[in-house]
Amino acid sequence: MSEPNAEEVQRLFSAAPFIAQLGLRLVSIGSGECRTALILAERHLQQDGFVHAGVHATIADHTAGAAAASLVGEGQYVLSVEFKINMLRAARGTELNCVAKVLKAGRTLIVAESEVTCASEQGERLVSKATVTLAVVSRQRS
Amino acid sequence: MSEPNAEEVQRLFSAAPFIAQLGLRLVSIGSGECRTALILAERHLQQDGFVHAGVHATIADHTAGAAAASLVGEGQYVLSVEFKINMLRAARGTELNCVAKVLKAGRTLIVAESEVTCASEQGERLVSKATVTLAVVSRQRS
Amino acid sequence: MSEPNAEEVQRLFSAAPFIAQLGLRLVSIGSGECRTALILAERHLQQDGFVHAGVHATIADHTAGAAAASLVGEGQYVLSVEFKINMLRAARGTELNCVAKVLKAGRTLIVAESEVTCASEQGERLVSKATVTLAVVSRQRS
Amino acid sequence: MSEPNAEEVQRLFSAAPFIAQLGLRLVSIGSGECRTALILAERHLQQDGFVHAGVHATIADHTAGAAAASLVGEGQYVLSVEFKINMLRAARGTELNCVAKVLKAGRTLIVAESEVTCASEQGERLVSKATVTLAVVSRQRS
Repeated sequence: MSEPNAEEVQRLFSAAPFIAQLGLRLVSIGSGECRTALILAERHLQQDGFVHAGVHATIADHTAGAAAASLVGEGQYVLSVEFKINMLRAARGTELNCVAKVLKAGRTLIVAESEVTCASEQGERLVSKATVTLAVVSRQRS
Repeated sequence: MSEPNAEEVQRLFSAAPFIAQLGLRLVSIGSGECRTALILAERHLQQDGFVHAGVHATIADHTAGAAAASLVGEGQYVLSVEFKINMLRAARGTELNCVAKVLKAGRTLIVAESEVTCASEQGERLVSKATVTLAVVSRQRS
Repeated sequence: MSEPNAEEVQRLFSAAPFIAQLGLRLVSIGSGECRTALILAERHLQQDGFVHAGVHATIADHTAGAAAASLVGEGQYVLSVEFKINMLRAARGTELNCVAKVLKAGRTLIVAESEVTCASEQGERLVSKATVTLAVVSRQRS
Repeated sequence: MSEPNAEEVQRLFSAAPFIAQLGLRLVSIGSGECRTALILAERHLQQDGFVHAGVHATIADHTAGAAAASLVGEGQYVLSVEFKINMLRAARGTELNCVAKVLKAGRTLIVAESEVTCASEQGERLVSKATVTLAVVSRQRS
């Protein structure tokens, strides 16, 4: 594959307020691949002390979006069409790590999957897995 | 149906830090039904000025969880097993509203669906729809 | 809405060998809506005497595809991009009925949902529900 | 892991009429893993000459079910709760092959994923990927 579109991927992390507030950090970019990390804090939890499913979903969706964005051309961006996520284990720990990989990059649709692991005293374990469909959109000329 | 378990539903909104920070507000509870609302602010957006898919997902998941929680017995709670969400339109506006209804309540699994609408100058439009599977868990006696 | 593209919908039932073999019958077409029915036989079952999940899925997907096809223009057809289905009850009975409705019809993507009910001695009950994303494809000129 | 429950897996292929009619063949069983194959014929196609999404779904669901069934104890069986499948490429060719692996085996729920490849003159290519949630059910004593 050619060089990843690192500029567009970085924009997904520098220009998205919801991601900044969450605290999701870009770890690495490849062509069709992205890694992110999140230091867990109380604000990420649901009512029983586990990481909220919405946090799993946000990380999985955004990292998949970044993996997809690494492949788009100049003047293009990606939008999530839909995703599905399985929470495999109730997550409790110190950090979430996510790896997203593109399964298929089409001209108008990109499909990626994300694996989220949670680091805790028991080690690092897979806690959720998502499949994300994204649309490739062309920016309107002004 | 019998009376909704309002106490457990209210706990989902009072005791979940991620939901408090998001700003999601409980509007009403019925048996197997829940309504919520979120005043949109910049912190809910992604890099192109639309509501982040993670916000759609959090609202859809949590409201479905509340609809399911309205049906559980004493000493039980619900955990999201998985969900799937379609973002039907890029959302931009002043408020999100969500209605979740239980499709099937089993002894160990509850399936609910959520519709999220966005209020803007163009009126109120459906922006996302999710199907959520939840597990009914019995609290350990201490 | 304008008149449904009945010709394209009928083609989905007359020209699809897998659907003919299954025995799925077109009941009615509207704009963005389709109804189908299937008389159940032993060949539709899995190893424990229930309707196979693949039968639920085929009916839900195909009926959603027909609802979407009712909206496409001349020279266009639809292809399933992805779907998600919940089997809400193990189905056993005499007939399956499916209603599919389009949730959102875009220029390149259509999202529809399908409800499958099963008729048995206990009456007619919802047995599965699916959400289907379809791509609108333009036929190549020859 | 311990020995796979080969007896239960074989029952999924010998006792399921829909699978026999489809022509799906069990290739191999491991603990939490299963491989199947299907020789493609005209009866598997939709209206445009591609493999019907219902065939992708049936293979992905059933092979995931077999991977899950390999892990259950005596007197238990599995039932599909829900699944999601992405058709990554329109499939046309001579044979479909499916590999399913269990992602998480819980006491009451098992999550597995399936990859379906299609063999054609262009080689073997990934055509669909599914995530399947199954319930572990205990057979009633008679």
